[in-house]
Amino acid sequence: MLSVEDARDRILSYFEPLDSVDVPLLDAVGLTLAEDLTAGFDIPPLANSAMDGYAVKSADVASASKFNPVLLPVLGYIAAGDVPQMPLSEGSAVRIMTGAPVPEGADAVVPFEDTDEEDRRSNGGDISEIGIRLDAESGDNIRPAGEDVRAGQTVIEYGAEITAGVVGVAASLGKTSVQAIRRPVIAIVSTGDELMEPGERREPGKIYNSNAYSIAALVEKYGGIARIIGIARDSIESLETMLEEAVENDMVVTSAGVSKGDYDVVKDVLSKNGEIALWSVRMRPAKPLAFGALNAPDGRKVPHLGVPGNPVSAMVAFEQFGRPAIRVMLGKAPLQKPTITATLDDPVYNHDGRRVYARVDVYKDDAGNYRARSTGNQSSGALHSMALARGFAICPDDVASVPAGTDAVVEILEWPDDDLLSDRIDHS
Amino acid sequence: MLSVEDARDRILSYFEPLDSVDVPLLDAVGLTLAEDLTAGFDIPPLANSAMDGYAVKSADVASASKFNPVLLPVLGYIAAGDVPQMPLSEGSAVRIMTGAPVPEGADAVVPFEDTDEEDRRSNGGDISEIGIRLDAESGDNIRPAGEDVRAGQTVIEYGAEITAGVVGVAASLGKTSVQAIRRPVIAIVSTGDELMEPGERREPGKIYNSNAYSIAALVEKYGGIARIIGIARDSIESLETMLEEAVENDMVVTSAGVSKGDYDVVKDVLSKNGEIALWSVRMRPAKPLAFGALNAPDGRKVPHLGVPGNPVSAMVAFEQFGRPAIRVMLGKAPLQKPTITATLDDPVYNHDGRRVYARVDVYKDDAGNYRARSTGNQSSGALHSMALARGFAICPDDVASVPAGTDAVVEILEWPDDDLLSDRIDHS
Repeated sequence: MLSVEDARDRILSYFEPLDSVDVPLLDAVGLTLAEDLTAGFDIPPLANSAMDGYAVKSADVASASKFNPVLLPVLGYIAAGDVPQMPLSEGSAVRIMTGAPVPEGADAVVPFEDTDEEDRRSNGGDISEIGIRLDAESGDNIRPAGEDVRAGQTVIEYGAEITAGVVGVAASLGKTSVQAIRRPVIAIVSTGDELMEPGERREPGKIYNSNAYSIAALVEKYGGIARIIGIARDSIESLETMLEEAVENDMVVTSAGVSKGDYDVVKDVLSKNGEIALWSVRMRPAKPLAFGALNAPDGRKVPHLGVPGNPVSAMVAFEQFGRPAIRVMLGKAPLQKPTITATLDDPVYNHDGRRVYARVDVYKDDAGNYRARSTGNQSSGALHSMALARGFAICPDDVASVPAGTDAVVEILEWPDDDLLSDRIDHS
Repeated sequence: MLSVEDARDRILSYFEPLDSVDVPLLDAVGLTLAEDLTAGFDIPPLANSAMDGYAVKSADVASASKFNPVLLPVLGYIAAGDVPQMPLSEGSAVRIMTGAPVPEGADAVVPFEDTDEEDRRSNGGDISEIGIRLDAESGDNIRPAGEDVRAGQTVIEYGAEITAGVVGVAASLGKTSVQAIRRPVIAIVSTGDELMEPGERREPGKIYNSNAYSIAALVEKYGGIARIIGIARDSIESLETMLEEAVENDMVVTSAGVSKGDYDVVKDVLSKNGEIALWSVRMRPAKPLAFGALNAPDGRKVPHLGVPGNPVSAMVAFEQFGRPAIRVMLGKAPLQKPTITATLDDPVYNHDGRRVYARVDVYKDDAGNYRARSTGNQSSGALHSMALARGFAICPDDVASVPAGTDAVVEILEWPDDDLLSDRIDHS
C-alpha cells in the first residue's frame, strides 16, 4: 500500500498552476502574482517635505541658532498636491506642508517649531517674513523623488503572494487590477442512497450530507472556489450524470463509494471514463482513497479525488491531498500543514502499520510547553471530535503506539488563537 | 504620550461584539457561532455496519473458525439508506453494506473476507446461505446509534469559531445556516489634495491613493467588509461630506490629516462631530494617530480610527489598532499578532523613546533558527519595504537599539510559507 508521501507525490503530478487572469486589486489578496509590478514613474514623483515648515537653502541659514535667527522673506506657500511654479530664489523661504513638493533650489525644510512662526502668530500674524532658528543641513526633512520606488524598478516580482502590502504597492503604481493565477473551481459530488440534503425533512435511517459542506469549507479556506453539485445515488448511471457537470471544473472531489461494497461505484466510473492512479493509502482514517483523472468532453483530463464517505476520513483525506493540490493550482509550493511537537495526554495506537491521524486539541501548559489531548471518540464517523480538533497527533506508520506522556508530531489544522503560535517572549 | 498598549486598551473600550445574523453555512467559515449547535436526533440515527459483510447474532457463530465455518441461511440484503423491515431471526444472517442499518437482533457484522462468499461466487454464486469463518464478538463492526452525537447533546457551543469541521457538524444536524456574529463593515476615507485614484491619468506631482487599498485588504484579511468611500480633499467641508456616508457603517478609518499642518483636518472634524479619545502614540512609525467616535444621525457613536497618511504608518497603525478592533466586533479575543524571537541581521535603532516597528523578512538559517533581516529603506513612505516584509522587528520603547546579531521579538505579519511555522521535526 502507498505511503501518504508517495500517494501525495503521485497525486500532485496531475496538477500544475492554472492560467492567470486580470483580477481587481481587492479580490487578488492571497493569490499568486503573475506579472512583475514595475514602476512607470518615481514614487514619490517629486522631492517633498517630511514636515510642516519652511523650505530654505541650507547655505542661507548656516549661521542660524535659537538666539540668532536668520530672517528670510516668505515668497509663498506650497501644500500637498500643489506643483511649485518657480524655483526658490537665494535668501528666501517658502512655507511648506508635509508631503508637498519642495521647490527647485530648496535643499532643506525647517520645521515650524524651529522658526518664530508661533510668536508671529501671537503678535498679529505677519508671516511675510520668518525667523529661522536652526542651521539646517542640506537634505534635512526632504524626501527625495524616487525614495520609495524608482521609475523602471521592478518592485514586486512575478510569483509573489499578493499581500495587503502588495495591493498597496499596485495601487501606488496606479493599477486597479493585477494579473494573478486564478482560483481553481472544485466540483464536489456526494454519493450514497442514505444521504439527504440539509434542510430536507429527515427520513428514518437517513443521514444528512455533511461531507459536501465540510469539504467545500476547506476548499474555500485554502483559496479555491467550491461548487457543490449534489448527491449521486449508488449507481454508475447516477454518478455519471453528476460527473458530466462536475468535469467542467478544474478538479472533482467525490465522497464515499470507494470501499469494496457492491455499491462502491467510484472506482468503476473512474476506470470507465478516465484512469485510476491510485487506490488506498497506508493511513488511518482514509485508507480507501481513489485518485485518477476523468476525461472531459473537451479533451482535458480532470483530476478526480475520491475521498471516503466517513465524515472524518473525508476531511483527513482532503487536508492531506486536496489542500496541496489547490496550492499547486494556485501557483504556491505544496507545503504541508505546519507541525509542532507536543506531549500527548492520551496515547495514540497504530494497529496495522498505517499512519494514524488522531484528533487532538492543542494547548500550552503552565510551563509554556505544547500538549495535545484527544477530542474524544476517534471513530472515523465521529465528526464531533473532528470539529473540536485543532490538530492531528501522528503515530508513524512503523510505530505501534505513541504513549501518553511522550512527544508526538502534531499537524496543526486551526490556530484559532494566534497566541498559541507565539513563543514565550512578550514585548508588552 | 500613550504607549501602544494603553492606546490599544483605550481604543478597544469603544468596541463590542456585533449582533448576530443567520448566515448560510459556507459564508460562516471563520465567524463566531452565536448559538449552541444541539442535536435533535442521534447521529448515526440507527446502529449501522462499519464494514461490508454479514450481520449475525454473535451467539450463532461462537463455534465458527476458518476451518470450521458455521453455515447460516441468508435472509436478505441491506444497503446504506435502507431501513430493515424485520428483526434478524435466530440462526440466520443478512448481507449488509457499510453504513447500512443493522437489523434488530443482530449484534455483529462479519466482513466478507471472513466468510466463504468469494468461494461461492467462484462456484456459481449461490449465496442463499453463507459460511461464517470467524467467532465474531458482540458489537464487532457495528457503530451504535448516537456514536457521534446523541439526541439533545450540545455538539458545538456558542462562541466557537466556525471551522470547516463545525460547518460539517451543522450540516450533519440538517442545518443550512447558523446564527453567527456578523462581519463588521468598515468605511475607508482617504484625505489629501495630492491624491488621485488608481486608474486615473497621472498628473504631475500627484500620487495614487494606495492607503485605501492596503487598508481594505487588511480589513478583508481580518474578517471585516471594506467599503472604500473615496478621497476627501483637505478641507473640513470635504471631509464632513465623506463622513456622512462613512458613519452609516460599523467603523470609520481615515488616512492622513492627523499631523499638525494647516490642512490636517481630521482632528477638527472629530472634535466638531464627535469626541477625541486619543491623539498620538509612542511608536514609530505611526505616532500621529487619532481615535475617537463620530456622532451618527441615528444616535450611534461610530468609532473612528485616523491613521497617518504615510503608507507604511497607515498599515502599521491598522495592524496594531484596527485588527484587534475587528476581532472584538467579530466576537473574538483581541489577541495580538503572533510573535517569534529572531536574531537580527540588521540593527534597529530607537532615537526618541518610541517603540520601533522595523520591517523585516524572517527566515530560518541552516541550523533552523529564526533570523530577521531588514527589507530595505525604513522611511515611513517606503511602501516597497513594507510589501516585502513578513514581520516587524521590535525595538522596545526604553531601549536605544537592538544591535545586529542579538535577539529581537518579531511580530509576524504574513506566514507565506507554512513551513516557517513548523518546528524542526519532520514526520516524513
